[in-house]
Amino acid sequence: MNILVTNDDGIRSRGLRELVRALSEVGTVSVVAPDQERSGTGHAVTMHRPLRAVEISGIPGAVQAFQLDGTPADCVKLGVEVLLEHRPQLVVSGVNAGPNLGTDVLYSGTVSAAVEGLIMGIPAIAVSISDHSEEWLGLDKAAQLAAGAARAIMKNGLPEDTLLNINLPRLPAEEMKGIKITRVGIRRYRDFVEKREDPWGRPYYWLTGEAVDMDEGPDSDTRAVKDGWISITPVRFQLTHEEFMKELASWNLD
Amino acid sequence: MNILVTNDDGIRSRGLRELVRALSEVGTVSVVAPDQERSGTGHAVTMHRPLRAVEISGIPGAVQAFQLDGTPADCVKLGVEVLLEHRPQLVVSGVNAGPNLGTDVLYSGTVSAAVEGLIMGIPAIAVSISDHSEEWLGLDKAAQLAAGAARAIMKNGLPEDTLLNINLPRLPAEEMKGIKITRVGIRRYRDFVEKREDPWGRPYYWLTGEAVDMDEGPDSDTRAVKDGWISITPVRFQLTHEEFMKELASWNLD
Repeated sequence: MNILVTNDDGIRSRGLRELVRALSEVGTVSVVAPDQERSGTGHAVTMHRPLRAVEISGIPGAVQAFQLDGTPADCVKLGVEVLLEHRPQLVVSGVNAGPNLGTDVLYSGTVSAAVEGLIMGIPAIAVSISDHSEEWLGLDKAAQLAAGAARAIMKNGLPEDTLLNINLPRLPAEEMKGIKITRVGIRRYRDFVEKREDPWGRPYYWLTGEAVDMDEGPDSDTRAVKDGWISITPVRFQLTHEEFMKELASWNLD
Repeated sequence: MNILVTNDDGIRSRGLRELVRALSEVGTVSVVAPDQERSGTGHAVTMHRPLRAVEISGIPGAVQAFQLDGTPADCVKLGVEVLLEHRPQLVVSGVNAGPNLGTDVLYSGTVSAAVEGLIMGIPAIAVSISDHSEEWLGLDKAAQLAAGAARAIMKNGLPEDTLLNINLPRLPAEEMKGIKITRVGIRRYRDFVEKREDPWGRPYYWLTGEAVDMDEGPDSDTRAVKDGWISITPVRFQLTHEEFMKELASWNLD
């Protein structure tokens, strides 16, 4: 199995390296990853300037590795289309330092790389840990789980246009409660713009804020991770509101 | 009705100005838009640096206008949370020069601004014309339709978490066939990376390519616009693959 590994924390991230190591037990691993952190890039693609790819060495377990001055979605596009010798059968994005849960998946560079896999017809996994300290709590477990999921996908396949979004709680592996299959919860933010003044009295703004999880059922991803579970969500992008089409057709819009 | 107008072509775009003019007949229009073109930004938010907003004048029909050095999603976040005096009841993004159809909506800055409206609990419209020449074929019609849709939403409401994605064909208004309510089609790309060499023989890459529309039924947005119809798609982000959860729970992932 040819596996393309990428992330949005950049190619030097410890999370990526552990992931490559674990996946190299499952298949032939290549890496195409951003040259620097690209968090919060959503599903951005770079079209206004050309991209540079540099082949690098020193990632144990990878047969090929490239760093790219682009987004995670760029990495998947360019990896599949140009850089890699063999077309990947699986895209794995992570291990991200910080969770990608609820509505946040729409902003997530980590998840967007997996979505780009789907768009290219390749099954995909995104994997994140909640801890973003130096400790990387749960990283080994996350990498193992990604490898387990890759094996299971190789055996069972994934439904078309579906990715697995894996998130681990901020706990030592032995204290995690186990795996829960979850739904994407609804995550909003409170006070998420911080206004400051520069030394000349002019305002500027930081996007920040506290996550507030709304309407989270017991099987939402946000709730599960809070409760100490490993969350695995089957994510797909069903974009049409089918049921509303008929009513909309009766509207007078002209 | 308070209406926030934004786009991804930048605040100086003719498409935005025509849209503001048309919407000012329906409600009180404010503008928060990027200071430059941000196409292909997907649902990016800017968290790695602060944002600057500058209030500007000279947009006929707008009671307030700000240009922001950020993405379309940033504009909606900051507009709603900090910049605007009154919370908008509707977000309208466009008029974009170039279509936003099929899978491309995932890359679209225009649509992402509307999605950000939904995330903040505000109904939203994205509107695009297929023409991206100097002629802006169909622009007047697009702005009128957005105003019509705003009126209809004011009257009927939109289902929760749903936006309208409006696309016009590249035709003079009188040659368009009328409105068709559509599904999001599947759009892929062929030969979408172009490799070049710099003057020193080193490779670089442009993301480009020809759109190829797959599996497009007669009511797909891609097909409708190709056939000369105005396409209106109710878009929502249903992210969980519910039907697959049970099977996934039976997998052995450890």
